[in-house]
Amino acid sequence: MIIKIPATSANLGPGFDSLGLAIGLYNEVHIKKSSYLGISIKGEGSSNIRLKKNNLFISIFNDIYAELTDDKGVFRFEFINHIPFSRGLGSSSAVIVSAVASAYEMADIKADKKTVLNRALFYESHPDNIAPAVYGGFVSSVVENKNVYSLIKKIPNSLKAVVVIPDIPLSTAKSRMQLNRNISMKCAVYNISRASLLSCAFFSENWDMLKVASMDCIHQQKRMQAMPELEIIQKIALENGALMSTLSGSGSSFFSLCFEKDSLKIKKQILERFNDFRVEVFELDNDGYVIEKEQ
Amino acid sequence: MIIKIPATSANLGPGFDSLGLAIGLYNEVHIKKSSYLGISIKGEGSSNIRLKKNNLFISIFNDIYAELTDDKGVFRFEFINHIPFSRGLGSSSAVIVSAVASAYEMADIKADKKTVLNRALFYESHPDNIAPAVYGGFVSSVVENKNVYSLIKKIPNSLKAVVVIPDIPLSTAKSRMQLNRNISMKCAVYNISRASLLSCAFFSENWDMLKVASMDCIHQQKRMQAMPELEIIQKIALENGALMSTLSGSGSSFFSLCFEKDSLKIKKQILERFNDFRVEVFELDNDGYVIEKEQ
Repeated sequence: MIIKIPATSANLGPGFDSLGLAIGLYNEVHIKKSSYLGISIKGEGSSNIRLKKNNLFISIFNDIYAELTDDKGVFRFEFINHIPFSRGLGSSSAVIVSAVASAYEMADIKADKKTVLNRALFYESHPDNIAPAVYGGFVSSVVENKNVYSLIKKIPNSLKAVVVIPDIPLSTAKSRMQLNRNISMKCAVYNISRASLLSCAFFSENWDMLKVASMDCIHQQKRMQAMPELEIIQKIALENGALMSTLSGSGSSFFSLCFEKDSLKIKKQILERFNDFRVEVFELDNDGYVIEKEQ
Repeated sequence: MIIKIPATSANLGPGFDSLGLAIGLYNEVHIKKSSYLGISIKGEGSSNIRLKKNNLFISIFNDIYAELTDDKGVFRFEFINHIPFSRGLGSSSAVIVSAVASAYEMADIKADKKTVLNRALFYESHPDNIAPAVYGGFVSSVVENKNVYSLIKKIPNSLKAVVVIPDIPLSTAKSRMQLNRNISMKCAVYNISRASLLSCAFFSENWDMLKVASMDCIHQQKRMQAMPELEIIQKIALENGALMSTLSGSGSSFFSLCFEKDSLKIKKQILERFNDFRVEVFELDNDGYVIEKEQ
């Protein structure tokens, strides 16, 4: 089998731990029954020897496969990774979701996307990356009693993502520790109102509302202080037609949404200022993970 | 002229100071140029002598009318009030919005609804009652730089509101003072994620999501402690088919949304337990304020 899984941008604007969307940048895993354990890694992580010895995908896959079958399966895994690690583009969630979905598939047990999502929650307690990795599109999620409740809106093809991927990571754990445990009611209302309006804007395709609705007061500013270039990137993107421009996850990547006609201009303007950053224009993904039987 | 303005339910579920909707329960004001100042009040407030001497509607109306014209107008006001005072059904916001819109109308100056809303914000700094009073429907609002940004979703006619109006008020100011100035990040995320999902549920008409999405951890429990009957009302409503059941504004009214077929059953069950409370089934309002020229 082959599973293809998208990158995701979570903590979307004011939607801390709640809102995310899927980006048309994919990891692919090829899995075959085999007489020996085989691992090959191409692309991101291919030079990291630890990923062969201590592989999160294989560990989760084996857990769930063992749970679902009596068979002690042996497999050959081929990873083709395009999602950068530790850049706020949901690489861990992509691994978790694709491992869960693959285990069900290889065990020949039908699992709908909600089942896969709830199982993935076991490995990643925040739903805002795993839910769009499962469903694609713009996804609003709530966790209650270990269940994820999500509503999904497909994003029109006329919109593109401009993603800036700095060459430095910002560790999620470190980023999270810098945040306050308490916030002011004023700041909470700031984000509650904007996360709601952002959701309405996506669902009703009122793109001109995104600029106001995508602002955040919980985490972005604190995290962006660690990398002041990001503030400049946000300013350039918004001045050149971006509908919204926010930290992706907990960084260091920066996500801007724009109409296709503006995407190359935004990319060019950012590269003119930061020519050593990777800046890419991606489609949005509206499918989430996709499984193919191998020929 | 005649202006008709709906009641509203704000602080909707997790949407503290952000989300609200309009209920088909109306105040009406008839205004005519006159040679003498005339005030008559029918319905709610008719026995309150202070409302004739110190009338918020007339004070706002006069302010704005004077601002818009050179004319020192004299008017006869006839108030027909159906929205109860101090019960969390937006009676103050109805007064403010209808006064602003009427002043523009009597000054013969065209004002779109956004203009009226931004002017009303001068008198009521939270948008969650005034925005649905202006537009009708389910409304998500953000205030930025003294402007209200709103997105509106009409609510289908198959849904009804069951509103419980206790015979005791809960003062908004007193209610607000009991709230903490700071909240935990966990509580903020609880409300951010649910307010977003609630917005998506209204916009996509996924009514089965409302139950999970309408929960709140910021203000309801604290306020409901002051009137434990409200918890029982919520339980009865949800057990009898309510899609969501939340404190209306800062109380004391309780708002439940349900399919028409369940509305009378919910009303009956609540009345069986609390036969001295007023329990009404209302339409939802999708128009906001409406102005008619008098014949």
